[in-house]
Amino acid sequence: MRNILLTIKYDGSGYHGWARQPGLKTVCGRMEEVLGAYFKIPVELSGASRTDAGVHAYGQRATLITELGVPVEKIPRVFNTALADDRLEGLSDIEVTAAAEMPEGFHARFDSKGKRYIYRIRNSSAPDIFLKRYRWQITTPLDIDSMRAACPFVVGEHDFACFQSAGSPAGSTVREIYSLDIKRREDDPDEIELTIEGSAFLYNMVRIITGTLVETGLGKRAPEDMERVIASKDRANAGIVAPAGGLWLDEVFY
Amino acid sequence: MRNILLTIKYDGSGYHGWARQPGLKTVCGRMEEVLGAYFKIPVELSGASRTDAGVHAYGQRATLITELGVPVEKIPRVFNTALADDRLEGLSDIEVTAAAEMPEGFHARFDSKGKRYIYRIRNSSAPDIFLKRYRWQITTPLDIDSMRAACPFVVGEHDFACFQSAGSPAGSTVREIYSLDIKRREDDPDEIELTIEGSAFLYNMVRIITGTLVETGLGKRAPEDMERVIASKDRANAGIVAPAGGLWLDEVFY
Repeated sequence: MRNILLTIKYDGSGYHGWARQPGLKTVCGRMEEVLGAYFKIPVELSGASRTDAGVHAYGQRATLITELGVPVEKIPRVFNTALADDRLEGLSDIEVTAAAEMPEGFHARFDSKGKRYIYRIRNSSAPDIFLKRYRWQITTPLDIDSMRAACPFVVGEHDFACFQSAGSPAGSTVREIYSLDIKRREDDPDEIELTIEGSAFLYNMVRIITGTLVETGLGKRAPEDMERVIASKDRANAGIVAPAGGLWLDEVFY
Repeated sequence: MRNILLTIKYDGSGYHGWARQPGLKTVCGRMEEVLGAYFKIPVELSGASRTDAGVHAYGQRATLITELGVPVEKIPRVFNTALADDRLEGLSDIEVTAAAEMPEGFHARFDSKGKRYIYRIRNSSAPDIFLKRYRWQITTPLDIDSMRAACPFVVGEHDFACFQSAGSPAGSTVREIYSLDIKRREDDPDEIELTIEGSAFLYNMVRIITGTLVETGLGKRAPEDMERVIASKDRANAGIVAPAGGLWLDEVFY
């Protein structure tokens, strides 16, 4: 059996997230179904991140244990041909961008050393309906300096219970955040990018951190408030959950 | 009763087209439902164009006969507040961009003098999955000069039976095309825009004309073939139906 690590890009707009769920259209479910039918063998993927409904990915990773004989360098092209859901366009909203042969026992999630997410905000007085699925559009000007001043409190190893949505599985809520940065794009100052890297993330953690930072940027919270929110370990003290469409899984580290 | 002409922009990705259909999510159906609930009066819209599932609009027009007292200049803002399907984002994928008071009897469709559609193609060897819903992505280089050479045959008053999808309602298939132009965008040569203006259009007409022109740009047809296709009045001689997502209703003329 081969163990293949795939790098996968997808537009999450049309999916109920990554993880397979009976009766729902999910990214993992669709890949398993389409590739299984194409190669006439059962296909099972293990993803590095269970992205939520509407969340996008540039660099999701998933391992595939398979007897498939396709040479590893041909896998992206062959898989993308199989995934093309429209003969006319030859294009899917899921794309395998890379494949690598891994030793037996390697697992996309358990062996990951961390992940980077990007949260994209469009901060313009004129919202663009065609970006609704890809940006959080905020029409009130955000004070980036205040948002940046709140970031250092998030970095480091902390109990992040305050940033976990209700209904999460029990377990330790200690995680390590390696870095958190916010900047306006130089080529388009309406575009704000929040980049966060960490060992692992709690359920909805990036979206709640973003919501809390946006409330800071709107002047509803002082930057130092972030320290108190984290120390409180109480979800009620943190901000709103930012919309799914602005979130992009950028990279998984090994 | 007032008669109000609305200008409407929408992202057609998530809709089964404009026209109301029982049990399906359509742009007209959603507007009627949301506005009716918001103002607590029945709302009925008559659109200028029955755009298909997945087709977008910058400038759809629709008339609304109503007793609603909202001043006309406030209608876009009030309607957009009602349409915002997410309190967090305050944004819908439908936007009313203008409203005008019209005399009794005026009708968005029957009084229109013509329409302009834009068909957007991304002609790049590297397709972008995030543009799947908004462009026809063609990876083989298109010969724009050949496509342009075929355009003059389409302009004018003709029987366009060849450009009508099977299953269309019976009736005259004579229409007048005022202009048809194709160009690469100067700021991004991968983007090709086909702009067509006409009195009215048959079912799938713009998408079949686009498909025929793309086959010309791929060298599968000579530009002069367009004249023979039209003269034949036979759908079988024309090209494929271009994907819905590339089509944008740009403007309706009165």
